Amino acid sequence: MVAETSTKAYTAELVDYLVASHPNDIPAATRHEGKRALVNIVGCALGGARHEAMDIAIAALGPYAGPPNCQVVGRSERFDPLLASLLNGISSHVHDFDDTLPRNYIHASSPVASALLAYASVNPVSGSDFLHAFILGFEVVARIGNATYPAHYEAGWHSTGSIGVFGAAVGVGKLLGLDATQMTHTIGLAATQAAGLREMFGSMGKAFHPGRSAQSGYMAALLAQKGFTSGRLPLEAPRGFAAVTAGRFDLAKVTNRLGLEFELHANTYKPFPCGIVIHPTIDAMIQLRGEHGIKAEDVRSVQLRVAPLVKDLCDKKHISVGLEGKFSIYHATAIGLGRGSAGLEDFSDEAVNDPALVRLREVTEPISDPAVGEDAVVASVTLNDGRVLHKSLEGSIGNLKRPLSDAQLETKFLGQATVLTPGERAAALAACWGIESLADTRQLIGRCVPGAR
Amino acid sequence: MVAETSTKAYTAELVDYLVASHPNDIPAATRHEGKRALVNIVGCALGGARHEAMDIAIAALGPYAGPPNCQVVGRSERFDPLLASLLNGISSHVHDFDDTLPRNYIHASSPVASALLAYASVNPVSGSDFLHAFILGFEVVARIGNATYPAHYEAGWHSTGSIGVFGAAVGVGKLLGLDATQMTHTIGLAATQAAGLREMFGSMGKAFHPGRSAQSGYMAALLAQKGFTSGRLPLEAPRGFAAVTAGRFDLAKVTNRLGLEFELHANTYKPFPCGIVIHPTIDAMIQLRGEHGIKAEDVRSVQLRVAPLVKDLCDKKHISVGLEGKFSIYHATAIGLGRGSAGLEDFSDEAVNDPALVRLREVTEPISDPAVGEDAVVASVTLNDGRVLHKSLEGSIGNLKRPLSDAQLETKFLGQATVLTPGERAAALAACWGIESLADTRQLIGRCVPGAR
Repeated sequence: MVAETSTKAYTAELVDYLVASHPNDIPAATRHEGKRALVNIVGCALGGARHEAMDIAIAALGPYAGPPNCQVVGRSERFDPLLASLLNGISSHVHDFDDTLPRNYIHASSPVASALLAYASVNPVSGSDFLHAFILGFEVVARIGNATYPAHYEAGWHSTGSIGVFGAAVGVGKLLGLDATQMTHTIGLAATQAAGLREMFGSMGKAFHPGRSAQSGYMAALLAQKGFTSGRLPLEAPRGFAAVTAGRFDLAKVTNRLGLEFELHANTYKPFPCGIVIHPTIDAMIQLRGEHGIKAEDVRSVQLRVAPLVKDLCDKKHISVGLEGKFSIYHATAIGLGRGSAGLEDFSDEAVNDPALVRLREVTEPISDPAVGEDAVVASVTLNDGRVLHKSLEGSIGNLKRPLSDAQLETKFLGQATVLTPGERAAALAACWGIESLADTRQLIGRCVPGAR
Repeated sequence: MVAETSTKAYTAELVDYLVASHPNDIPAATRHEGKRALVNIVGCALGGARHEAMDIAIAALGPYAGPPNCQVVGRSERFDPLLASLLNGISSHVHDFDDTLPRNYIHASSPVASALLAYASVNPVSGSDFLHAFILGFEVVARIGNATYPAHYEAGWHSTGSIGVFGAAVGVGKLLGLDATQMTHTIGLAATQAAGLREMFGSMGKAFHPGRSAQSGYMAALLAQKGFTSGRLPLEAPRGFAAVTAGRFDLAKVTNRLGLEFELHANTYKPFPCGIVIHPTIDAMIQLRGEHGIKAEDVRSVQLRVAPLVKDLCDKKHISVGLEGKFSIYHATAIGLGRGSAGLEDFSDEAVNDPALVRLREVTEPISDPAVGEDAVVASVTLNDGRVLHKSLEGSIGNLKRPLSDAQLETKFLGQATVLTPGERAAALAACWGIESLADTRQLIGRCVPGAR
């Protein structure tokens, strides 16, 4: 592994910025984007709160939880805030419906918000401070992601976990009011817990990543606050995070124009609950189906030309559980053509085993083509009547050029928040948008718990 | 990163072995070596139980601990077993006095025993089953270590953490009686928490590694027991542990002659509480001092020829805290020549700042020489009277050819167990040696707690 040797003190520069940053330093447009991200991720946590992976994690770890004073989004139980961080992370990512940074494929909101929502459930935090910490944490994840992309991701790391941990750590550290030494050790103790393998894709292990990174980051900040020490150059040292986990990196991307430009504006919100790289295919198939009135049984075969990354990530053809469908270019094709939809119910175990969809997966053939962009697809659908339909799509819905509007984000939120009553949903949504006016973030968190007053 | 593609199902073969293994399958000599490792690691945990890093971790994380039914080696407080795993791991490694596998430099006992001691404090486990799980966990760590050495370690991973997690996971999994599917997911959830950077060396972060890996491994087994899923090929998949963390690997070393040969017999026990690669220098300096009646003020300069790894790991010259001294070839030289000893007190903050030792560090010059073995040193000491003394040492005390005897391990144990009364120390030591006759491992753990009856 060729590691570039760094001479600049990137960690120190980042720490100085984080310690000095004030809510008023964040531009209004960035704060609004932060609220959009918050609406999206809280909605996702509500949507995943009753997933089997949550029930299992609670059954396994609940007996070891500390004082139950922390609320979990979408659940009525209370746990300690470290376990709550883990649970918020699982629920908000388990449907693969959260946000994506197209520059590095990180889902940054989940690890950051999951830790901060737990922290703010057991500590008084103004809504303004909460949003500020969230934006800082998000920014750190996005920038470390950019600095190590693509080598880190291509090596096989699921960076939502392995880099998400930094955002959770500095976000909690900011709310704890850590000084520069403590913040350095927070980043160090986050770096040394950085983990998460792409081999987990298609299993519950994927959603475990942002959860565990939220919990690990939170722990890093707690330890550093009390004086636990780490190495001093966790990002840039020869055996630091960047060199160890990425063959190539450019840590200048962590600090360049820090506080002046915000990666939050490069964030996207998914319209479909699955891997981002199969969104163009779903989009194209839904369009073709609508334009030609196609039914599942009409389709003889499908040929797709997709970016190599798509096959690399989503070449799961023979699948049996819903989570696998979220990373199957075959299943994406099948639901788009066969159902004309791609909602949570189209990625259930039942949907994956639907014989009509199984057949469509069988007749789908994706071909890797470096000439096709990662947010594009070139599709040919051959029908039983001999017709061959073509669709070339560049820039799927939800991408930076076709972003979900605030209203679409609200619809997505309300559609996921089914653990709440309709009245509770509206109140929770209003609290997200109104975060900056809340004296205490518990006014938001309490509204995200079923049956709470 | 060039990753070899594996075709064999290494994880499955390992899982089948672990699930089927019975205490009677372990040869008597291996069980005896297991008891030696247990004596050594419990002694180290007792010796580190009052370290500042422990007090800080307890202050930071104790408020979030679950039901306090688990004992911690060397401490009177009780916590939940997950936090206790972390604490046992910190205490047993914080003095760098634990064991070392010379084939891959992993300190395997700490992560494994730390989790198992916590588990067995809150669940009835016979001493025989405990020793069996410990030996299996140790073996898994050692073998995954061999399979990925040296690429994994050279990349910058502190494999005691990043590989130790597997041993904690399968050890707890064995005691939980997991079936093959659960054990596969245990290994997967361990793999996806594998972490720990060598940049932490010289800080408390280093001892955090076996602690966190003990806790993470324990958590992996608990989650898998209840049905949490992971990828199916966590070791051998293209984005599995080996390919992601090691440029080169040979997973056949995980399964070759599994159950027939035990890496536990390749384990060594440290006579000095510091990095293993500076042991030859300490040994040589103590010998020179004794042979020639050298005093600190007699020394004009020291020249050392050492293996490149020694400088790579231990080139810390200007240091101010005891933990840094444990990774300083300069400090190793200074205490050997200046004090003729290398006990816990010679790696304290006070010792590191002792002016006589600071001066000796200043006049020490280590030179990297690929012709010198990693367990060797070629030293020249120039005295103020003009004499130049030479010492070439190959194979330092404690290595596989000069292992500590059972009696030396007992002396080491008793010297570290100062949190216990002399009577308690003897009882704790006897319980380690007698582990196989204990109906419940709590009979051992209870004896390792100060003031317990």
